[in-house]
Amino acid sequence: MLVNCAAYQEGHKLADIPKEDISEYVKRPNCFVWVALKDPEPSELDEMREEFGLHELAVEDARQGHSRPKIEEYGDSLFAVIHTVEPQGDELVVGEVNIFVGPNYILSVRTHTEKSFIGVRARCEREPHLLKLGSGYIFYALVDAVVDRYFPVIDDLETQLEKIEDNIFLKNTARSNIEALYGLKQKLMTMKHAVDPLLEATGKLCGGRVPQICEGTQAYFRDVSDHLQRIHASIEGFREMQTTAIQVNLGMINLNETEVTKKLAAWAAIIAIPTLIAGIYGMNFKNMPEYDLAYGYPFALALMVGVDFLLYLWFKKIRWL
Amino acid sequence: MLVNCAAYQEGHKLADIPKEDISEYVKRPNCFVWVALKDPEPSELDEMREEFGLHELAVEDARQGHSRPKIEEYGDSLFAVIHTVEPQGDELVVGEVNIFVGPNYILSVRTHTEKSFIGVRARCEREPHLLKLGSGYIFYALVDAVVDRYFPVIDDLETQLEKIEDNIFLKNTARSNIEALYGLKQKLMTMKHAVDPLLEATGKLCGGRVPQICEGTQAYFRDVSDHLQRIHASIEGFREMQTTAIQVNLGMINLNETEVTKKLAAWAAIIAIPTLIAGIYGMNFKNMPEYDLAYGYPFALALMVGVDFLLYLWFKKIRWL
Amino acid sequence: MLVNCAAYQEGHKLADIPKEDISEYVKRPNCFVWVALKDPEPSELDEMREEFGLHELAVEDARQGHSRPKIEEYGDSLFAVIHTVEPQGDELVVGEVNIFVGPNYILSVRTHTEKSFIGVRARCEREPHLLKLGSGYIFYALVDAVVDRYFPVIDDLETQLEKIEDNIFLKNTARSNIEALYGLKQKLMTMKHAVDPLLEATGKLCGGRVPQICEGTQAYFRDVSDHLQRIHASIEGFREMQTTAIQVNLGMINLNETEVTKKLAAWAAIIAIPTLIAGIYGMNFKNMPEYDLAYGYPFALALMVGVDFLLYLWFKKIRWL
Amino acid sequence: MLVNCAAYQEGHKLADIPKEDISEYVKRPNCFVWVALKDPEPSELDEMREEFGLHELAVEDARQGHSRPKIEEYGDSLFAVIHTVEPQGDELVVGEVNIFVGPNYILSVRTHTEKSFIGVRARCEREPHLLKLGSGYIFYALVDAVVDRYFPVIDDLETQLEKIEDNIFLKNTARSNIEALYGLKQKLMTMKHAVDPLLEATGKLCGGRVPQICEGTQAYFRDVSDHLQRIHASIEGFREMQTTAIQVNLGMINLNETEVTKKLAAWAAIIAIPTLIAGIYGMNFKNMPEYDLAYGYPFALALMVGVDFLLYLWFKKIRWL
Amino acid sequence: MLVNCAAYQEGHKLADIPKEDISEYVKRPNCFVWVALKDPEPSELDEMREEFGLHELAVEDARQGHSRPKIEEYGDSLFAVIHTVEPQGDELVVGEVNIFVGPNYILSVRTHTEKSFIGVRARCEREPHLLKLGSGYIFYALVDAVVDRYFPVIDDLETQLEKIEDNIFLKNTARSNIEALYGLKQKLMTMKHAVDPLLEATGKLCGGRVPQICEGTQAYFRDVSDHLQRIHASIEGFREMQTTAIQVNLGMINLNETEVTKKLAAWAAIIAIPTLIAGIYGMNFKNMPEYDLAYGYPFALALMVGVDFLLYLWFKKIRWL
Repeated sequence: MLVNCAAYQEGHKLADIPKEDISEYVKRPNCFVWVALKDPEPSELDEMREEFGLHELAVEDARQGHSRPKIEEYGDSLFAVIHTVEPQGDELVVGEVNIFVGPNYILSVRTHTEKSFIGVRARCEREPHLLKLGSGYIFYALVDAVVDRYFPVIDDLETQLEKIEDNIFLKNTARSNIEALYGLKQKLMTMKHAVDPLLEATGKLCGGRVPQICEGTQAYFRDVSDHLQRIHASIEGFREMQTTAIQVNLGMINLNETEVTKKLAAWAAIIAIPTLIAGIYGMNFKNMPEYDLAYGYPFALALMVGVDFLLYLWFKKIRWL
Repeated sequence: MLVNCAAYQEGHKLADIPKEDISEYVKRPNCFVWVALKDPEPSELDEMREEFGLHELAVEDARQGHSRPKIEEYGDSLFAVIHTVEPQGDELVVGEVNIFVGPNYILSVRTHTEKSFIGVRARCEREPHLLKLGSGYIFYALVDAVVDRYFPVIDDLETQLEKIEDNIFLKNTARSNIEALYGLKQKLMTMKHAVDPLLEATGKLCGGRVPQICEGTQAYFRDVSDHLQRIHASIEGFREMQTTAIQVNLGMINLNETEVTKKLAAWAAIIAIPTLIAGIYGMNFKNMPEYDLAYGYPFALALMVGVDFLLYLWFKKIRWL
Repeated sequence: MLVNCAAYQEGHKLADIPKEDISEYVKRPNCFVWVALKDPEPSELDEMREEFGLHELAVEDARQGHSRPKIEEYGDSLFAVIHTVEPQGDELVVGEVNIFVGPNYILSVRTHTEKSFIGVRARCEREPHLLKLGSGYIFYALVDAVVDRYFPVIDDLETQLEKIEDNIFLKNTARSNIEALYGLKQKLMTMKHAVDPLLEATGKLCGGRVPQICEGTQAYFRDVSDHLQRIHASIEGFREMQTTAIQVNLGMINLNETEVTKKLAAWAAIIAIPTLIAGIYGMNFKNMPEYDLAYGYPFALALMVGVDFLLYLWFKKIRWL
Repeated sequence: MLVNCAAYQEGHKLADIPKEDISEYVKRPNCFVWVALKDPEPSELDEMREEFGLHELAVEDARQGHSRPKIEEYGDSLFAVIHTVEPQGDELVVGEVNIFVGPNYILSVRTHTEKSFIGVRARCEREPHLLKLGSGYIFYALVDAVVDRYFPVIDDLETQLEKIEDNIFLKNTARSNIEALYGLKQKLMTMKHAVDPLLEATGKLCGGRVPQICEGTQAYFRDVSDHLQRIHASIEGFREMQTTAIQVNLGMINLNETEVTKKLAAWAAIIAIPTLIAGIYGMNFKNMPEYDLAYGYPFALALMVGVDFLLYLWFKKIRWL
Repeated sequence: MLVNCAAYQEGHKLADIPKEDISEYVKRPNCFVWVALKDPEPSELDEMREEFGLHELAVEDARQGHSRPKIEEYGDSLFAVIHTVEPQGDELVVGEVNIFVGPNYILSVRTHTEKSFIGVRARCEREPHLLKLGSGYIFYALVDAVVDRYFPVIDDLETQLEKIEDNIFLKNTARSNIEALYGLKQKLMTMKHAVDPLLEATGKLCGGRVPQICEGTQAYFRDVSDHLQRIHASIEGFREMQTTAIQVNLGMINLNETEVTKKLAAWAAIIAIPTLIAGIYGMNFKNMPEYDLAYGYPFALALMVGVDFLLYLWFKKIRWL
């Protein structure tokens, strides 16, 4: 679906143009075309390939989807694949943004993602002095927009980790903690697969030999790269704490087992001792003087209660109960 | 076994040729020969060595098999070893494809693998403008075909992992989960051994100094390398989740143990208390007034049932039962 | 909040100057301005941006905070983000120091940190021969001050680890040890996130191509880098010991469980044997000669006590009790 | 002990020569000397040092032994230390081969290893066209011979791992599995210490700047390097599976514990219930109508058996028995 | 404390000189001064700084101690920090050797270490042809002496590991094994912190750009580096085995727990069955024919013993006892 198709000159919007005219505007000097597609039909991509003269392999990647994040050079143009990560209920949904960048055009194709880039376009149009920097700057603005949307996801993961950490030493939470930790791990892996390759790719746009298109915008891409580095460090930190938390959880489960065994042992003793006493006074010897005492029975009961009371105090003292 | 032996010129097939004529066609300018062998006899490899003038060490590798995936330069020709991975029942079977690539010939030798490259040849013959790119392009097409066959295997491993993840928090699945996780690990290692060295090798065909034969096809090899990178990232992700899943599984086993111990303790108490009461009323004191009551016996039974009922409620409440 | 604003020439302080005059002094040759802000308002940062001509992206980073430690070049000036780590009760509080360094100015902005850099300024003013080295030296002095404050934190973490190590083989400390180990891990991660990126960043100021501003001070930055390396090595060492300690802790928990089970078994036997004897002498056979013995009852009791005494000795010997 | 000492020219053996003449032959152009020592006396090494003019530090290394595998350049000559690994009963025995390679000599010194290099010499003498390549080729042939002897060891380790894998999910094998896994780990470490440094060292003989002596034999050393890479990959794979197997083993031990606890609980219940019934019918109430029934006793016995039968079925159903 | 202070020329000792004359001798061509300090006062270091013209930062490091091992260049001189590791009872004590090396002087400062370098000086003086190589050679000799003292420590750690490995599958050793493994880990970390940075530092003295002072002694430093590499590999190997041993230990603890549970279950059954029989014959039914039999009582006892004997055999057979 064509979302937007406009031509710009000297930092200002010329006009919304019909897609058939793209190839004309692209040829004009000092002019560039910015097109946005959403969940496009194969035919739409073919049209774009012809209008912009895109490379077959890049279009193929955009058509098939499922690429890993990357920024590739095709001659003097760039092709970028970026993953969007959006929380949906308790899941993270991964979408894809494909960006084709040429010296005088930029084409963004987003799939499986709800959030549009209208805000990016509006902000760029309000800042003609930056828009003048050309397609490299718009490319930065789009990448930056996607990366900025990673932060709330990361913050959310941090909150989840902290919640687990609050619970991890509480009793009877082992099962829910371990489930939460596994779920957290899955989300961390999803984020990692989105962030790490992109970090590697943007690193090449801010240092060493920079593609022609991105010259003059290195500081901006360094900024994006820095944000990604921060997210990357957070993810790595969370992964390590998550691993430790799983080990700690296992320790807590075992500690709990020990405590149950101690309780079992204590109560078993408290029941077994009176049973033994009752057994003794159930013996059938002829000559058992207690049997004839008036208070034999109450004495036996008192003995049972008394021993149990002492046992109970003892187990309380050694914290088995 | 000779599967195919044909000469090509300017992107078109000249003819199927007898293998004795190979050395002649190879000498012709602008002409190249494409030969496919399957599970060859040593003698067949010797013939090929002579016809194409292959390097002794490369032929030795092809003869012995069991090499790790690699792409090696011998002068102006290349020798590649690639592993095929095919699911067979619940196992992954590893086969081998050896490819000899010269400026005007390509020889593929496949062993222990069912799937042929007839489709690759057919597709190449339908696209003369690509076939014109020469042996480098065919080499790409063969590697690409093998790599494309990795994807269903990876998808299958993902499905297996997800199935385990669905089961991992269920009760009484610990044993089957742990067996499945170990089997998954074995398959992941098999894939890793096929993919990682090939990823390293193809990386050298798309950047830096590229062998003469592959010049002009860097973008294609970058595409293959990108696919391998994706598979590699998936494998690494699966391995990490598998490791976490094993830890979680251990936690679940221990949790389960604790629950069994709690159940054991609860039922032990429920049986032991009436046993104690019965023991008390089995004592032989002369003076036990309950013995003479008309309802002593029913009272004792009611006491047993009552205490057990309260115990049962209590254990239900603290979730030991 | 403006903490300090002074101009220096030839290693000596000229005067405290009003912030409106900064841009004038910055223009004078052989003169430099040193300004310190604390938890500044956005408007203050804007003023500084204009007076010093700072880069927009750097000011943006300082305004938003939450950057990771880094040292970035903007033309011939540097922008550094450094984390302060201060213990507060049982927590580590992370603050931030942003430093803008130009050929003839230095601006430090600290947020969320109590400790000021007054001592650094005083020491620099006492050593004109070093202050003459210019903004690069002051930059070093500030970084060095922050890094020096890491050492007591690291020493404190070492003390905590040693305390845990002292307890780890004691009984009944498993729960508190595991909690302490998890807390230690969190603090180690905090330190790691402060130290590692800074180590990487300072490494670039003491070897290879060094920014113009830091020329002549490489040996000083190598010293800082060396301190950071030492802290880094300590953190890595602590992390590894902490991981081992968690494993050992798990082993101790399981060992303890085994000991509880052994105790349970031993006491169960000691109670069960006399219960069995009592049961036997509670049987109702007509022909049980013991029943008629004068000392049948004392004999039975003695049998119970005797068997238990032997059992007790036995369990003591095999260390189950 | 001197094993062999011969001079070669143009790919053919000239003669077995006495060791005093070595220095003479070494001076002759186009001639080279190949000497093999076994477990030499210090004096023998000193002689060799003088005859060949070997470097003091290299001879020192050969004399002391216990070096790690390495290939070092001393001027225009090479000194290599290679470990042999030979199975001896259930152990792996590590021996050492020191090789001194000069432009026109090769001296091999083997210690603690049974297998000689007579086969290598014989094969070389049969292939004059390769022997002509000079000392670099013989050096390759010796290294290749040692590396080839690693393969059966690796295959043996694989067999051991597979045997453990077959047992790991069987009952009552946990102890023997864990012992076997630890033994396997020890052997893997032995292999790793032999292979990894050698892999690194041979890598330098097949790419980049190659020592003069090895020029013309890069393809051969690449082949050795490739074999080592394969062994390295196998070792890494085995180590990872071994680690996973230990974790799985721990899980199986815990699973088994749970099953024992379940069995204990089930049988405890099956014994405790009739004990309770017997206790009830041992109470001394005057008014217990069952006592006077003709079939009271058989009924009680039948009750016991009946309840136990139901319990048994129940425990079978929930798989506790 | 000044240990030694002597001037050397052309490989021979000129004289022991008073420390005030150092600066004079240092100025003489072809002459160098070798000074050794032990646990020096700050004032002594200041004197040395003036006599030799040492760099402030290096002297500062030597004064404060607690640096990590390193070799730093200050202009044409070197400053090295090396850790000594000496066993003291069951602990490893870390001392420090600081070495200042200039073109014509060498100053060694050792703290917290008992062993002197008198042997090194004596050996150097006996070998004038090596001493002629100048301060670089003496520097090597000192480093080599410290590194050589690591070997017995490493051998001792290996012995400790082997002792643990011998015990690890024995019963009732889990607690002592785990304590020993933790202690071993601590020592390995101490060694690692001494060795790894030094390995990195010496690597720079034997390859690539070598400091002026060390030219001509690269082969010697490569030898030191090689020794450190070997120690490093041993440490890494021990650490990995130690990690595996901790896991195995955990498995053994759990196995032992299972065995205790089995024993508990078996003995519980052996006691419970006769208790049940006694209970049955303690029932008060009027019509129990066994009661009137002459041999009822012995029969009952025989029944108890018989059943227990069978149970015992059974438990022996399934190895629960």
